[in-house]
Amino acid sequence: MKLRFLPLLLLPLFSNAQSNVDSLFIKKMSDEIMTNGKAYDLLYELTKKIGGRLAGSPQAQNAVIWGKKSLEAMSPDKVFLQPCKVPNWKRGGNDFVAITGVNGEARMQPLAAFALGNSLGSNGLIEAEVVAVASFEELEKRKEEVKGKIVYFHSVFDPTKIQTFKAYGESGAFRRSGASRAAKYGAVAVLIHSLSTAPDNEPHTGVMVYDEAYPKIPAVALGPNDAQLLYALAKKGTIKTQVQTYGFFLPDADDNNVIAEIRGSEFPDQYITLGGHLDSWDVNEGAHDDGAGIVQTMEVLRVMKALNYKPKRTIRFVLFANEENAARGGKEYANQAKINMENHIFVIESDEGGFTPRSIGITASPAQFAKFQTWTPLLKPYGSEITFGGGGTDIAPMAGINKESILAGLIPDSQRYFDLHHAKTDVFENVNKRELHLGAVNMAAIIYLIDKYGVK
Amino acid sequence: MKLRFLPLLLLPLFSNAQSNVDSLFIKKMSDEIMTNGKAYDLLYELTKKIGGRLAGSPQAQNAVIWGKKSLEAMSPDKVFLQPCKVPNWKRGGNDFVAITGVNGEARMQPLAAFALGNSLGSNGLIEAEVVAVASFEELEKRKEEVKGKIVYFHSVFDPTKIQTFKAYGESGAFRRSGASRAAKYGAVAVLIHSLSTAPDNEPHTGVMVYDEAYPKIPAVALGPNDAQLLYALAKKGTIKTQVQTYGFFLPDADDNNVIAEIRGSEFPDQYITLGGHLDSWDVNEGAHDDGAGIVQTMEVLRVMKALNYKPKRTIRFVLFANEENAARGGKEYANQAKINMENHIFVIESDEGGFTPRSIGITASPAQFAKFQTWTPLLKPYGSEITFGGGGTDIAPMAGINKESILAGLIPDSQRYFDLHHAKTDVFENVNKRELHLGAVNMAAIIYLIDKYGVK
Ligand SMILES: [Zn+2]
Ligand SMILES: [Zn+2]
Repeated sequence: MKLRFLPLLLLPLFSNAQSNVDSLFIKKMSDEIMTNGKAYDLLYELTKKIGGRLAGSPQAQNAVIWGKKSLEAMSPDKVFLQPCKVPNWKRGGNDFVAITGVNGEARMQPLAAFALGNSLGSNGLIEAEVVAVASFEELEKRKEEVKGKIVYFHSVFDPTKIQTFKAYGESGAFRRSGASRAAKYGAVAVLIHSLSTAPDNEPHTGVMVYDEAYPKIPAVALGPNDAQLLYALAKKGTIKTQVQTYGFFLPDADDNNVIAEIRGSEFPDQYITLGGHLDSWDVNEGAHDDGAGIVQTMEVLRVMKALNYKPKRTIRFVLFANEENAARGGKEYANQAKINMENHIFVIESDEGGFTPRSIGITASPAQFAKFQTWTPLLKPYGSEITFGGGGTDIAPMAGINKESILAGLIPDSQRYFDLHHAKTDVFENVNKRELHLGAVNMAAIIYLIDKYGVK
Repeated sequence: MKLRFLPLLLLPLFSNAQSNVDSLFIKKMSDEIMTNGKAYDLLYELTKKIGGRLAGSPQAQNAVIWGKKSLEAMSPDKVFLQPCKVPNWKRGGNDFVAITGVNGEARMQPLAAFALGNSLGSNGLIEAEVVAVASFEELEKRKEEVKGKIVYFHSVFDPTKIQTFKAYGESGAFRRSGASRAAKYGAVAVLIHSLSTAPDNEPHTGVMVYDEAYPKIPAVALGPNDAQLLYALAKKGTIKTQVQTYGFFLPDADDNNVIAEIRGSEFPDQYITLGGHLDSWDVNEGAHDDGAGIVQTMEVLRVMKALNYKPKRTIRFVLFANEENAARGGKEYANQAKINMENHIFVIESDEGGFTPRSIGITASPAQFAKFQTWTPLLKPYGSEITFGGGGTDIAPMAGINKESILAGLIPDSQRYFDLHHAKTDVFENVNKRELHLGAVNMAAIIYLIDKYGVK
């Protein structure tokens, strides 16, 4: 039984008839998306019929074909491919890590593990003692111990950070630069605790970067439970582990940004861009990261056509290539915008998962931000508001491309994202239809408002 | 790769040193819960070691023993049982519904189905033509057709309602009173579209109520896909279905509210109550409904003891009995409060799932509400705010129990709740640890503020 006092809807405070018109049109878009939205079905196709789609893979090529065809079916003014070269990293095999000795006693305990993206293979089996450290400071203090050893970084999330991206930003340093920081002192491989909030043992991959000054040693993320075990053992005694990975690069491959455009009726030379990234890691279906952003972008196009909305400004719907391990798609989009001297006024990305939206985060001058903030009552009925600060990896190169360019991001609830981000659990089944579509509603609303009122 | 502009934290605006003290203590509670919280582990025990626990079942008795033991382990001042009599409904068998004829042609197509709670069995196999209606108005218009037929109510959720409890409130009327509304005109059974938001075929049970004036006919919820099929067929032609259900009542059983108490140091006669309900439906683990509310209630007690917090007012942690099919636990709690002339100033329930909290909804006078609203900046860092309107089925009988009594509810994000509410998918695996614990943080925060500042 369930009889309760319903919370009152936070009704927009209409300052004038105009914002009533806006409120009604946003509700019309919301009703259309929540009733007939296709984002969820499109996500099914992308995740289940194409699957994991790392740059350079056949799946990445299939995703481009699928993206182009799907956008064309929605009849924008044009759809085109924007070619770019992308790195072509291959995992090369089933990554292997095992504890093989504890305090001199032999043992064989395989650990859940994924090599980090862009890391190079071990060239055979490496076996060495583990030096387990909790921070770069501890590594510096113990640098004399590191030569010939395997360094383990205890890169756990800080659970007290309510916004999980904050914790990710902190622990992320170990994944990105841990290998070279340890190789500098002679380490032969590094292991990290997966960047995960999940109470499970799934390893999470993700990109790493070698410092060219040091040997390019293997770098592997361990499942959280196994990492905890390893750290506990290593703190009490001498641990030996084996590592074997297979990562390598083929020559750069051809890839494409997939771009749909609706030409503006009044200010066609002012561009508004929204997008997500079409690639994903190889170990999952890239459902939240970033299938969600892709199909939300498509849904905004679909709803505009369904409601026969004619934008005043030119709107670009962009499926970016290769975000995960080099962001070449985003760089090429900015590069072409510069070459063509396009006037981009607003660029927004959805790349934080298809969860219930909490806000539209906008990076802007105080005066501009004050204007945007007046739109919060229009977003509140859809669970969102305007907050300061937002962007995305793919659109970062657009910062400052011209005086007016403003970056923004869809900011969904972040509690579940790092449970599955870059782990094999990032699959279609873990995306909720209403949450996904509600994200598209908020994206559609902000695009509509920017199109109508501009950014000044 | 994921490098983005972090949204700025919405910092509480400290009006004075006092609210700084509050902000620090709430953060201390949050850090403790997000780091060492036991709610998730307790939920595992309740769902996996006890399971579904409808009033009258052995599992419901086990849940009382488990609840008492678990609360005692947290060392409140006392733990006691408050006995109550509860209805003892049994499903009695595997509910069966099948389409057996389409336009005169025989067919045998079983449909996913759960009898509604408190409905009585069919006493053998019923077979009849279907009258499918979309509303009570349509039923009234077509009442002459109903005699001897099986009425199907197309009780779908309105997907455009962003707050799903609103849609549930609307469609819920068909589940609650559909059977008797149809029996009035001679229907022999009713079927409804499950009250579900999920894009799947899981049937959702839930309580129904017979009007004593009419025959007590079987009442069954169908899986959403099967219900859509049945409705589509019935609109085009003549459909026959079979229904067999087995529901019956045993004599009322003994059950208990499980109550822990910390005595107030300054105003021991002012009571603050928080709680959830210990029972669940028989078809699932009752993880979100309402295992979540139970373990969040326990976690608030745990964190107060862990931080050695001594409340000024008396705090009651209540695991209510029998919410689902009669709410006898809640009624008895209010009854005893009246008999003992207890002064209850604030009563809050968590019974909308263990999802990310969005607000604390409070039903209060405008003056009181204005006071509570000043606490929004203290909740914002934990994803929540104070909104108007809140309560819960178990605490509804406490309304107006004395002049000061104020009802409230933890209001989590509602997008996923009706995907699994009363369906077999409401299991531990579908609860997220951080979301669950964040709910406990917000419950702890509001209890702390009410305890410290009272309600006047
Ligand atoms: Zn991404
Ligand atoms: Zn409930």
